[in-house]
Amino acid sequence: MKVIHSILELRSILKTQRLEGKSIGLVATMGALHQGHLSLLTHSVAQNDLTVCSIFVNPIQFNNPEDLKKYPRQEQKDLDMLREGNCDLVFIPSTDEMYEQTTMIQFNFGHLETVLEGEFRPGHFSGVGVVVSKLFNIIQPDRAYFGQKDLQQLAVIKRLTVELNFPVEVIGVPIMRESNGLAMSSRNLRLSDSEKETAAQLYQSMLKTKDLIASGVSFADAIENTKNEIMSLDNLNLEYLEIVASDTMKVLQNAHDTTDVSICAAAYVSGVRIIDNLYLKQKN
Amino acid sequence: MKVIHSILELRSILKTQRLEGKSIGLVATMGALHQGHLSLLTHSVAQNDLTVCSIFVNPIQFNNPEDLKKYPRQEQKDLDMLREGNCDLVFIPSTDEMYEQTTMIQFNFGHLETVLEGEFRPGHFSGVGVVVSKLFNIIQPDRAYFGQKDLQQLAVIKRLTVELNFPVEVIGVPIMRESNGLAMSSRNLRLSDSEKETAAQLYQSMLKTKDLIASGVSFADAIENTKNEIMSLDNLNLEYLEIVASDTMKVLQNAHDTTDVSICAAAYVSGVRIIDNLYLKQKN
Repeated sequence: MKVIHSILELRSILKTQRLEGKSIGLVATMGALHQGHLSLLTHSVAQNDLTVCSIFVNPIQFNNPEDLKKYPRQEQKDLDMLREGNCDLVFIPSTDEMYEQTTMIQFNFGHLETVLEGEFRPGHFSGVGVVVSKLFNIIQPDRAYFGQKDLQQLAVIKRLTVELNFPVEVIGVPIMRESNGLAMSSRNLRLSDSEKETAAQLYQSMLKTKDLIASGVSFADAIENTKNEIMSLDNLNLEYLEIVASDTMKVLQNAHDTTDVSICAAAYVSGVRIIDNLYLKQKN
Repeated sequence: MKVIHSILELRSILKTQRLEGKSIGLVATMGALHQGHLSLLTHSVAQNDLTVCSIFVNPIQFNNPEDLKKYPRQEQKDLDMLREGNCDLVFIPSTDEMYEQTTMIQFNFGHLETVLEGEFRPGHFSGVGVVVSKLFNIIQPDRAYFGQKDLQQLAVIKRLTVELNFPVEVIGVPIMRESNGLAMSSRNLRLSDSEKETAAQLYQSMLKTKDLIASGVSFADAIENTKNEIMSLDNLNLEYLEIVASDTMKVLQNAHDTTDVSICAAAYVSGVRIIDNLYLKQKN
């Protein structure tokens, strides 16, 4: 496994591989890797001749400077995990390497910017759009793997890829969960064991929402019921809980005309923001 | 010369050529070709193994629907000119081929959006950013050629390319002029001979501005003098006349700290909008 810090060097290696007809998979990460990332890696290794993992904590997608400062970093452990997972190339650029000059460009993803994460994290998806565009253009992968845990991010990246015709197949990979149901996330490193139990309640609540809907309760009633239940819990502060179309993130009152429907939620546990989602209905 | 309408077919042809190590040049046009476009083509043919010219009147960069409707179209003549100019591939997609779904993404280029063309054509540069990103991703050229006549567009495209790391060298090609000095433009097809004479006055005025500055007159005084002169002319309605840094389009009071300085202007002649620019100082 080769570790590369320079864009020029990475491009030069990949150009040679591309001319030999090798297919390239990209797993873009911010480090602090867990089983969720390794699942992305496993998918990429299985489907491509060569897998590049990037580790870059992208400053311009953090709307909260405190969150950026506290974002966990563990480069040596990450490298061990990637080696173990048969990653071929690791790209770890410095912030100066990625942002030679101040970024002037901003993306606006329309409706996708104004709901759920978009509403609570202004500028976040613009930062995601910029860094993903950069990585796509630097690495020019055939396939890129993103976790379904960040479902809205996945929707934004799919939209970016289709609308700008990036020659990349974007693949969403299912959420990995702890045994208690908590969705794996790098930010979980900031939670104690008991806080993780609290955090797992968010998933348990979403399961109940799903059950209520399966038993015929309306979306609105199921959501209200779940919200009330969560409000009665200690230390779990709900930011939003909505049922949406998985590709557009439009809030739905029912699933009649939509093929791909998810429950999405965000909450704070002891100052750490967690997000999660659960498919209600999925395209085959 | 091959004419292609489908993205899939173009990609397939170019993939083969790329694997054979061929370099690709792109000349992106909206058709209604003139000597200015042919100059871009000549540069590309000289520097690349293969040149792709695109002809696509991009609806989303027209802030004025009337301007879109009246934009000149002459496909057969364009194809003859391109064949004559040794173009290899012409890409003529339909609007549906380029915009399968409604565009949700918008670009914001910060300061570049708020001055000169940005001020008078809201949304224009977002549309340019989207279509250029699409063409870069569909064609994946090594080099792309754009006319310096659209100097602010060139600045926007350079910024887009650098900030998003498109693996493309963006090359600005000098303005071609009619014998009376009028900058060549597809929109000139909408002008009568006498209107062209009027339009050429814009260039003559910019030359005088340049002379005044060379003789020691301040930017502000030179601009004021030229504006007054243009206002005394019949049928030439000035929209703006500014001296700017050619890369950032920041309006300048002097050229002390800037290596690349231009006079930029826009005006209406009988309802047709013309733009032009002239270098005052240029990087070597």
